[in-house]
Amino acid sequence: MDFKKGDFKGVNILNGYQFTNQQLNHIMNIAADYERRVKAGEVIRDMEGMVVASLFFEPSTRTRLSFETAINRTGAKYISMADAKASSTAKGETLEDTIRTVDGYVDCIVMRHPEKGAAARAADIAEHPVINGGDGAGQHPTQALLDIYTMRKEKGHIGGQTITFLGDLKYGRTVHSLGYFMQQLGNKMIFASPEELKMPEEITADLINRGAQIEQTSDVKAALSQSDFVYVTRVQRERFPDEESYNRCRGSYIVDNALLKAAKPGITILHPLPRVDEIALEVDAYEGAAYFRQAHNGMYLRMALLGLVTGRA
Amino acid sequence: MDFKKGDFKGVNILNGYQFTNQQLNHIMNIAADYERRVKAGEVIRDMEGMVVASLFFEPSTRTRLSFETAINRTGAKYISMADAKASSTAKGETLEDTIRTVDGYVDCIVMRHPEKGAAARAADIAEHPVINGGDGAGQHPTQALLDIYTMRKEKGHIGGQTITFLGDLKYGRTVHSLGYFMQQLGNKMIFASPEELKMPEEITADLINRGAQIEQTSDVKAALSQSDFVYVTRVQRERFPDEESYNRCRGSYIVDNALLKAAKPGITILHPLPRVDEIALEVDAYEGAAYFRQAHNGMYLRMALLGLVTGRA
Amino acid sequence: MDFKKGDFKGVNILNGYQFTNQQLNHIMNIAADYERRVKAGEVIRDMEGMVVASLFFEPSTRTRLSFETAINRTGAKYISMADAKASSTAKGETLEDTIRTVDGYVDCIVMRHPEKGAAARAADIAEHPVINGGDGAGQHPTQALLDIYTMRKEKGHIGGQTITFLGDLKYGRTVHSLGYFMQQLGNKMIFASPEELKMPEEITADLINRGAQIEQTSDVKAALSQSDFVYVTRVQRERFPDEESYNRCRGSYIVDNALLKAAKPGITILHPLPRVDEIALEVDAYEGAAYFRQAHNGMYLRMALLGLVTGRA
Repeated sequence: MDFKKGDFKGVNILNGYQFTNQQLNHIMNIAADYERRVKAGEVIRDMEGMVVASLFFEPSTRTRLSFETAINRTGAKYISMADAKASSTAKGETLEDTIRTVDGYVDCIVMRHPEKGAAARAADIAEHPVINGGDGAGQHPTQALLDIYTMRKEKGHIGGQTITFLGDLKYGRTVHSLGYFMQQLGNKMIFASPEELKMPEEITADLINRGAQIEQTSDVKAALSQSDFVYVTRVQRERFPDEESYNRCRGSYIVDNALLKAAKPGITILHPLPRVDEIALEVDAYEGAAYFRQAHNGMYLRMALLGLVTGRA
Repeated sequence: MDFKKGDFKGVNILNGYQFTNQQLNHIMNIAADYERRVKAGEVIRDMEGMVVASLFFEPSTRTRLSFETAINRTGAKYISMADAKASSTAKGETLEDTIRTVDGYVDCIVMRHPEKGAAARAADIAEHPVINGGDGAGQHPTQALLDIYTMRKEKGHIGGQTITFLGDLKYGRTVHSLGYFMQQLGNKMIFASPEELKMPEEITADLINRGAQIEQTSDVKAALSQSDFVYVTRVQRERFPDEESYNRCRGSYIVDNALLKAAKPGITILHPLPRVDEIALEVDAYEGAAYFRQAHNGMYLRMALLGLVTGRA
Repeated sequence: MDFKKGDFKGVNILNGYQFTNQQLNHIMNIAADYERRVKAGEVIRDMEGMVVASLFFEPSTRTRLSFETAINRTGAKYISMADAKASSTAKGETLEDTIRTVDGYVDCIVMRHPEKGAAARAADIAEHPVINGGDGAGQHPTQALLDIYTMRKEKGHIGGQTITFLGDLKYGRTVHSLGYFMQQLGNKMIFASPEELKMPEEITADLINRGAQIEQTSDVKAALSQSDFVYVTRVQRERFPDEESYNRCRGSYIVDNALLKAAKPGITILHPLPRVDEIALEVDAYEGAAYFRQAHNGMYLRMALLGLVTGRA
């Protein structure tokens, strides 16, 4: 199925399972096209005259800067709230009233919010499209989309592969959204996590229900030996009941050159960043260390989403 | 009297009583023209190449985002200080020195400041025009201007009407500025407030001196039954000596569907926002509930002011 | 030696002694050209399509607004981090990882950081040019460059002159960077400071080694009587062991009309701002009081640096 300009106009980007494979493919094609145009030094005016709100009810400098760069590079301009503490929210205004007001100013709303479901509530109110930049323990679809865009770029295609999700699978909303994409795109998943940080039972069950191929293990080496990708997330000290159980786990979930020796040759390493020490610095020199390219790809993917939902791509 | 492009170049927007009726009319016409052009999807370049400072010495996300959208939409760019805490002000610099420096960077200064008279002090120093975005207990002229722009749009004309100011008339600087416009434009005012939150005596006296038609009452229903507009403001708990007197008052100043039944048919409801609970959510569905349109109109009104004072409109 | 467009492409601006006199001259010529174009009202598009990161790991509203205006006025757009507290840095990310990520978004990085050497570390990592907006007790080269641009504008030329550095020469990184320029451009320096706040011995020795003509004194009047320029810095109370020694010093380092009577006629007064009380307000009316013009010149100088390092000037 072919899409034409304007077909995604007004679509809200809310979760990781709202698109068909054809739609995912189209989004990635548009991202690739923006990548090509930016690299060619083109002055892009697709969204000229448009204003996008970048509303961070919860601070996240990295995600904010990625979106605001994307807004700039599509030719639009932005208004920005980096932190809700000084806002009307702090004066007791409801999310709905804030969104209704800002919706009257702009052509598109990008938002990060600490509450699950906040983006969907905003989308119900707003006349302009809403892009969810993370809603608490809910979803983070633009991260998952840039993840699969990166996977496709790194391997030349996506589907029929194996990916290990490593580390904290309980609290990492990124792996939750990405799990749905992997199922949908036909990738096998291996969940390798400490007992304390296993993927939530309801998500695993839901994925299996949808036909996902899933394996659970605590044997990281065995997992990596059969994986085309490893998706690393941070194991945070505060997730453990005590120092001892943290220290016991920690070592097994650090990716270093020694661990890489046990991995499938050419394995691609992904990480949503920021990384602390779960990937050793020595790994940065490895060709398959794709995490900084992944962050870079996020800019093109977000340009694509902005262009698509405003009808300019 | 007719105005032409450039006639307002260099004018500072400082208070609610600096314009003649012809000037007010011209400002509203320019705002209406920007509204038409934005809605037509025009890429506006009136202020292209210009930079506007958005200086919030006191945080106010709502007003800041409205101004920064307006700056973007006229084709200008902005520099922004969302909060003075990290600024040179915090290092002991005077307002005058800060303004002198920023005035050297930009083509226009928008400022919010906690001290009454701060905008006028800045305008004395700056070579470029200053727009007062609220100066403490002083004035908030751009809010009052967007209020009358909204009144004109909602009713098709302005003048010879009746408006009830409801709620906190003591601390609400918006109603102070708006009172002068109502007098000037020939609208009758009814002040309906708790005893504790009455309009300051000197303002009432000054308005009457200028020829205003004013009625004071605590009978909200009677007030609304003869009003074309009701301007609602928030009654804040902290304004009352004790919980009891707050609770006694509160109920009478909440606009809900029951109260609306006593109002003049077709009454237009205004509110500077954010609203907390002084207008019930059920009222949002009422056709005359104009408060979100009012916020939206603020963008066009601020575009008009920016274009006018920089000589580009 | 003549330079052509693109010759400075990719150059990092890290310290006050990296340029030859010819290069300094070229930078100032480009700044002068931007000044002419801005004053002529030209809509400058030299950096159109480019995005510059303005990363303030330590807040500095004045420097940030100056850079962000410069970015806007060259036709580029910016992304901004006004404060690192809410950033990935706060989550434990290294400076190197942050820079690697942001470098993937933008065409140039402007940064202020509390640690000496931070800008050089960033430049080692980044593929795009880095402009040091101040690194702790290290350097502040763009300030020193705008200082010499101002000196040249005020006197018509630079070199063979005498400048007194007045006040806190120990902690003022600006005078450290500027000292190297003065040596390089053949200006004699007089260091006039309280004993507690003398220029660090290693810098004085290094400057003399490079051939600088330096005099040290505590006789401010004598110093000013033979100076073409005086560069005033703030003497901060917290630099002194006790209130008494602070009060003893303070008076001698305040520039007022009385002190100016002892100065060489036509002396130019410079100050990096913000000023607190080290220059009396009465001095602002003096023709040679150049400090606000100096801040204004910073915008053109920063436009020049941005244009040069991105190859657009």
